[in-house]
Amino acid sequence: MKYLIDEIYKSVRGLVPNAELCDGAEVELEGWVRTNRSSNKIGFIALNDGSCFQNCQIVYEEDKVANYADVAKFLTGCSVKVSGKLIITEGAKQPFEVNAAEIELLGDCDASYPLQKKRHGLEFLREIPHLRPRTNTFMAVFKIRSVVSQSLHEFFRQNGFVYIHTPIITGNDAEGAGECFTVTTREDGNYREDFFGKHACLTVSGQLHVEPFALSFGKVYTFGPTFRAENSNTPYHASEFWMIEPEMAFCDLKGDMAVMEAMLKYVINDVMKSCPDELEFLNNFVAEKHDLISKLESVVNSDFKVITYTEAVDELIKSGEKFENPVSWGMDFNKEHEVYICEKIAKGPVFLIDFPKDIKAFYMKLNPDGKTVAACDLLVPGVGELIGGSQREENFELLDRRMDELKMEKETLDWYLDLRRYGGVIHSGFGLGLERLLMYVTGVANIRDVQAYSRTPKNLKF
Amino acid sequence: MKYLIDEIYKSVRGLVPNAELCDGAEVELEGWVRTNRSSNKIGFIALNDGSCFQNCQIVYEEDKVANYADVAKFLTGCSVKVSGKLIITEGAKQPFEVNAAEIELLGDCDASYPLQKKRHGLEFLREIPHLRPRTNTFMAVFKIRSVVSQSLHEFFRQNGFVYIHTPIITGNDAEGAGECFTVTTREDGNYREDFFGKHACLTVSGQLHVEPFALSFGKVYTFGPTFRAENSNTPYHASEFWMIEPEMAFCDLKGDMAVMEAMLKYVINDVMKSCPDELEFLNNFVAEKHDLISKLESVVNSDFKVITYTEAVDELIKSGEKFENPVSWGMDFNKEHEVYICEKIAKGPVFLIDFPKDIKAFYMKLNPDGKTVAACDLLVPGVGELIGGSQREENFELLDRRMDELKMEKETLDWYLDLRRYGGVIHSGFGLGLERLLMYVTGVANIRDVQAYSRTPKNLKF
Repeated sequence: MKYLIDEIYKSVRGLVPNAELCDGAEVELEGWVRTNRSSNKIGFIALNDGSCFQNCQIVYEEDKVANYADVAKFLTGCSVKVSGKLIITEGAKQPFEVNAAEIELLGDCDASYPLQKKRHGLEFLREIPHLRPRTNTFMAVFKIRSVVSQSLHEFFRQNGFVYIHTPIITGNDAEGAGECFTVTTREDGNYREDFFGKHACLTVSGQLHVEPFALSFGKVYTFGPTFRAENSNTPYHASEFWMIEPEMAFCDLKGDMAVMEAMLKYVINDVMKSCPDELEFLNNFVAEKHDLISKLESVVNSDFKVITYTEAVDELIKSGEKFENPVSWGMDFNKEHEVYICEKIAKGPVFLIDFPKDIKAFYMKLNPDGKTVAACDLLVPGVGELIGGSQREENFELLDRRMDELKMEKETLDWYLDLRRYGGVIHSGFGLGLERLLMYVTGVANIRDVQAYSRTPKNLKF
Repeated sequence: MKYLIDEIYKSVRGLVPNAELCDGAEVELEGWVRTNRSSNKIGFIALNDGSCFQNCQIVYEEDKVANYADVAKFLTGCSVKVSGKLIITEGAKQPFEVNAAEIELLGDCDASYPLQKKRHGLEFLREIPHLRPRTNTFMAVFKIRSVVSQSLHEFFRQNGFVYIHTPIITGNDAEGAGECFTVTTREDGNYREDFFGKHACLTVSGQLHVEPFALSFGKVYTFGPTFRAENSNTPYHASEFWMIEPEMAFCDLKGDMAVMEAMLKYVINDVMKSCPDELEFLNNFVAEKHDLISKLESVVNSDFKVITYTEAVDELIKSGEKFENPVSWGMDFNKEHEVYICEKIAKGPVFLIDFPKDIKAFYMKLNPDGKTVAACDLLVPGVGELIGGSQREENFELLDRRMDELKMEKETLDWYLDLRRYGGVIHSGFGLGLERLLMYVTGVANIRDVQAYSRTPKNLKF
């Protein structure tokens, strides 16, 4: 009977018991050889089939396996089919192994295989994105990326949010002026004659396009790729990344923050429950200070605090701390300030709210003081800003005036103003960069290592 | 106490009983006026808050509501807040209504509002994509789009598939030569000096990029936007659409078809359970023959048949039917043939398998006959092809030779060949166009009406 290694683990660990999988059961496994070592009489293969993080130890003995000498030569990377007896090894490091009766080579792998039994550097592995998911680190990272993404959909569905696919190709580059990729079928920049009859670019955010759906369905979200043609090579920037942007009608900034907190806790809890082996590996071998799990636990167990931008400025000045960028009201905080606020002042996850309007986007709701807007950034220890959100300006006159102040081309956004003309209501939303969340949840330090095939300047080999 | 209309419906229908929501309960609702009619003494508002397809009837009486005369003038599209008593109306057409004590105007809406109480044509509504989700048709369609998408993620997660985000920007235009959008930051076609240092384009399929992950995790899928710069204006083509592309290692064509069938039944069952009101509306007002629900029921209750391409050719010729395109072995079937095969020969959903290699992609597995490949199309009544899949050629020599035969540039796909060099295994996958599935599930005839903001030639206003 054919099984996945994950099924056996779940049964032996009592998570999904399967009476068929008792000691001595005949099982058949297919997977890839991670390591293979042998003596004259007995050999051991660590077999991985991708269904779970753990390998299964295959024991093969010279007097039981007909092609013993061949099997002993199977190299790392070979794919094999194994038939044998399941041996439950209670108390041992690995809770079971398979004693092989037959081992068949499915696909050979020679010594030119780039993944050998040693630690490979992350930079080297970036050169082989098609093979690196076969390593422990990337198997853990991409499994968690999947669980986080699926978990986000679950959270939103359970809470009555409608999933909207906002467009990738857009004619509005209002938000990302100068940082947009052009989409074209021409080579001469003549956009009037172009495919869409005008200049087209890749979206930098789905927010403006998702707002109309919040004003129809109440609670919605978009979850898709976004793009920045920013020519910067840092560990935090990629040209293509995924964003989650929920938007809620009849919801103010306070309600917005409640959703962010609930969403984050839901997803982190799911990862801790679904990927314990992956997290343990990342905690021990990837997270610099081995504090990954304790960090995640403290997030789900804490009540997120709230402080205003103005309070934060006062506290930062009062602290007497020497910052690289001196603090004054009106400035945009840098990572040094965010980390200080989070780790020293709030001592945990904290919402920073009510920012000066001039450092925030045009659509954010003006507060009664006339100089701040109802925006918030969620700061978390170690990372700084994880999520940014705001209540949107629902008042037609105020939004119209703000767009004039900023000399925006209102014609292309007239439809956006319609949402304030026709039955407008208080609404709020936020944007969460999937990769930033993943770097936080996996402890991985470079955005290139949480993306299947990362796109950065001058880098498009695969 | 603030409620969503959906919560009240679910409670009154006994789906999610809430003891607080008894007859006479004080409730507060926020939503949009769909219709408003009144006499001197009493008025009725059909209120929709987007949480469910159904409106809630608000009854307001002149002697109870202080601003009666104002409320009577609220136009379609206004947003309001209503406080009042929940009245359970057992046996009535609507199972409950709210008797208002207070109605407050949140956002006004004047008579210029494009959505009035009458049936609007779909073409007119395409001109206002930011407002059409407030209509019954589009509220039903986009809710189902959301449920289908979330349900696909659920199906794959429950079955152990890892969700991979394959890249949107790619340097491989092998598959879509000539139909790719270029992604650039230049206006002179000098791609060597371009952002990525080479020609970049928008992906036409994630398949090649997801295969490496199947050969790591076993079962994976990608679900994201894909693009075609095809200059065709038909009801079935859009320049941007979403694809689901699962890929499974240790899986042959038979296993591939089993996943397609299970996936389709899972999703359709979920829609029938989650969106009964939406389906009923679409069945009655959108599906041309009012056979939408019976069609979906017959799919989930049937066992999908399998016939070979060669058998189908024989049957089509034997039928004596006059087809616009005459039938002969080696041809690619048109919709007329697919519909005949599905409706007259198989009388239900059917997998057509083993196509001539020359009408299929280079990566499909050559059958022992040397002239057909292990590919399949799933045909469903009324639509024709819904899903296309295949077993992939895992044999290095055969794939290499095929790429030579087709004069493909192998250099840029050397990494793809690596998957056959290093521990290759039998693997299969398929591609499902989300929009095609949605047209099938909603009965909507034009792809533009199942997309939030459709992108087609010369059409990029929003």
